[in-house]
Amino acid sequence: MQEFAEMRIPGSLEETITPQNTALIVYDMQVGIVKQIKNGSPVTQNVSRVVAAARAGGVRTFFTRHMSLPRELMGAFQCRTAMAWQRVDSMEKVKPMFLRDSPGFQIIPELQPLPSEGIVDKITMSAFEGTYLEIALRDCGIRSFIITGIALEIGIDPTCRQGSDLGFWPILVQDACGFGNEEAANHSLASLKHMGDTTVTDVETVCDLLATIRR
Amino acid sequence: MQEFAEMRIPGSLEETITPQNTALIVYDMQVGIVKQIKNGSPVTQNVSRVVAAARAGGVRTFFTRHMSLPRELMGAFQCRTAMAWQRVDSMEKVKPMFLRDSPGFQIIPELQPLPSEGIVDKITMSAFEGTYLEIALRDCGIRSFIITGIALEIGIDPTCRQGSDLGFWPILVQDACGFGNEEAANHSLASLKHMGDTTVTDVETVCDLLATIRR
Amino acid sequence: MQEFAEMRIPGSLEETITPQNTALIVYDMQVGIVKQIKNGSPVTQNVSRVVAAARAGGVRTFFTRHMSLPRELMGAFQCRTAMAWQRVDSMEKVKPMFLRDSPGFQIIPELQPLPSEGIVDKITMSAFEGTYLEIALRDCGIRSFIITGIALEIGIDPTCRQGSDLGFWPILVQDACGFGNEEAANHSLASLKHMGDTTVTDVETVCDLLATIRR
Amino acid sequence: MQEFAEMRIPGSLEETITPQNTALIVYDMQVGIVKQIKNGSPVTQNVSRVVAAARAGGVRTFFTRHMSLPRELMGAFQCRTAMAWQRVDSMEKVKPMFLRDSPGFQIIPELQPLPSEGIVDKITMSAFEGTYLEIALRDCGIRSFIITGIALEIGIDPTCRQGSDLGFWPILVQDACGFGNEEAANHSLASLKHMGDTTVTDVETVCDLLATIRR
Repeated sequence: MQEFAEMRIPGSLEETITPQNTALIVYDMQVGIVKQIKNGSPVTQNVSRVVAAARAGGVRTFFTRHMSLPRELMGAFQCRTAMAWQRVDSMEKVKPMFLRDSPGFQIIPELQPLPSEGIVDKITMSAFEGTYLEIALRDCGIRSFIITGIALEIGIDPTCRQGSDLGFWPILVQDACGFGNEEAANHSLASLKHMGDTTVTDVETVCDLLATIRR
Repeated sequence: MQEFAEMRIPGSLEETITPQNTALIVYDMQVGIVKQIKNGSPVTQNVSRVVAAARAGGVRTFFTRHMSLPRELMGAFQCRTAMAWQRVDSMEKVKPMFLRDSPGFQIIPELQPLPSEGIVDKITMSAFEGTYLEIALRDCGIRSFIITGIALEIGIDPTCRQGSDLGFWPILVQDACGFGNEEAANHSLASLKHMGDTTVTDVETVCDLLATIRR
Repeated sequence: MQEFAEMRIPGSLEETITPQNTALIVYDMQVGIVKQIKNGSPVTQNVSRVVAAARAGGVRTFFTRHMSLPRELMGAFQCRTAMAWQRVDSMEKVKPMFLRDSPGFQIIPELQPLPSEGIVDKITMSAFEGTYLEIALRDCGIRSFIITGIALEIGIDPTCRQGSDLGFWPILVQDACGFGNEEAANHSLASLKHMGDTTVTDVETVCDLLATIRR
Repeated sequence: MQEFAEMRIPGSLEETITPQNTALIVYDMQVGIVKQIKNGSPVTQNVSRVVAAARAGGVRTFFTRHMSLPRELMGAFQCRTAMAWQRVDSMEKVKPMFLRDSPGFQIIPELQPLPSEGIVDKITMSAFEGTYLEIALRDCGIRSFIITGIALEIGIDPTCRQGSDLGFWPILVQDACGFGNEEAANHSLASLKHMGDTTVTDVETVCDLLATIRR
């Protein structure tokens, strides 16, 4: 591994994926989201494989959940967004879909977090905005994250961008990421690849790497 | 009210406490915290009075909860802090006190949030660090916050400081704030008053003001 | 304009572009960046038109500058990124391109900020990450931003994404945004349009709107 | 040094002060600030001793500068604060004291940053709010910071508090910190000591420790 000023600079997935260096983010695998997308079932299976490999490898794991605020706490921007997404023309018709403690808000039963794993609730698209995720990762010395979940073009894209702005190396597991719109997902992938900070990989590669490490 | 560049600049509590402008933060009134302090019962009564007045006045309300991460996700700084607070000399002896879903983590029964109110989980002292609170307040156009809860010298002090760095006017209701150490609480109050951004007031004043407004 | 809970919810550019509501961000129009791209000259002309229209309309304006840290302060992620961008294989060969006070760091002479305008230095791609921009905009009551500059696919894309996560309405002026790679720029535009938070518009539309307002 | 989950948990200044682990923050030693305080000269001498020791020990150093925004970009909170600090009753009478490029904004000649050191401009009290400091420190693997400068009770106090919320160990060098008001500075020190995250030490101790390390 290259060194500079006594810092180690990983240059490959082999060098960066270790229990000390890497965490797994499972993005928004919630009841109300997985059922919305066409290929929810194979994505769930692939996410499960990565979660199992991370657990076996001793990699810290965090599950995000998208949370709606009650209408009384929604501000002007959130109101505009909610009306657009729900295709209604007044706030009276908006139904918050992911209220805390509602059924759609829960993580799907196939992927129940262990007591040793983290749950990160957020009202944003990026998993780093308005959450404790950066603080927790940094305190553990984490420098890269493997990301899986739904939806690639909506929330995983900005999580990778903000993650790299914060200095984390994002590792996107393409076949463990679901999408709502395939064309948009492909635009996101092309754009992230062009930027170059995010490494796009697949379940087999990442599970093979996770199988070689153990804390 | 003074105006500058078409912005209104409130100069008094009367001018800043309105349902459009102000939110209420109820800080860490959790089962495991309230029972730790000597004057938990009168503080709870005073917080309840402010919450009732805010509800009657149409003021948005957010309840914070201090959350422990599981030991497997605690980093070096959190480990050091936990050992110091629990006065133990190794991580094996540390017991996370506010794990999600544990009894001590819950908000006390006397202060149950309504479905229209927000819950903000945090692993930090400041209610603004690593939480969605700033985003939610800003989107609603909020510019000042009334703060009550426990403990003044531990978490309410830095919440006021960070709040004012972010441009919110903090309004601390002294007799609705509990403390673990009276001398330290007095140091915090003196220091906040010296800074000048935070207004220190009392339950009667703030409830009287809240009684005059209605959304 | 639609109202909800006494908040105004703008639904069109006409409703959101006002001196009270909107700021202009001029992204990284620096000597060392403008000269790198093929269509630097027409982009500069179009950015100048928007800047002039914003000034005439009384809209607050902020200029961002990309800043390199000296090699001694670059961490592992920044080292990896710098080697990749400069296509060298060791840190000894990296030359920080935008050191504070270097010629390439300066804003181009055609776009000199006025004393009444802001300069925002950043080491990140998003103009909101690690900068004072959000705090300044919020304190002025700003809720949307017009964005122009270079490069669309590198820094303007994540600025729009983070801006909308923070609750600002991004207004991207396509023909006043330069790019290094046209295909990547088109992927970014397609992806932002799919997300729906960002409005993509052009110089003529935005200048016409700015001509109708005055503080 | 204690270890947990393969993380090293420093427990003493000896264990935490190393070039890999620690940075030095020189807070707001600006022309317009140093001259305002009574004991500016001895504080400058003590800060200089710490800076020299940090340079000799290979410790990364960052200088903060307080920056005023032009009046046209000051929002309602900043207007209220500026009027209070300058004891005037209207914005027309406010004079921004630390405009970029003004004489008072500069770092004092005795403490000129080297090209290898960082400059962090901020409009807030905490050096971490709205700045790139956290990102830069984390990317270098820094976990604690030594802090010196002016003023203890205004800006150094909240920098320590936010620093510890972010997971950094603050090391405050008391006799290298100036203050505007001694009683307020003592309240801050008492409050920080009670919190327990920040270690309060002195120039001799910290210089002795820095003399034993070298990158």
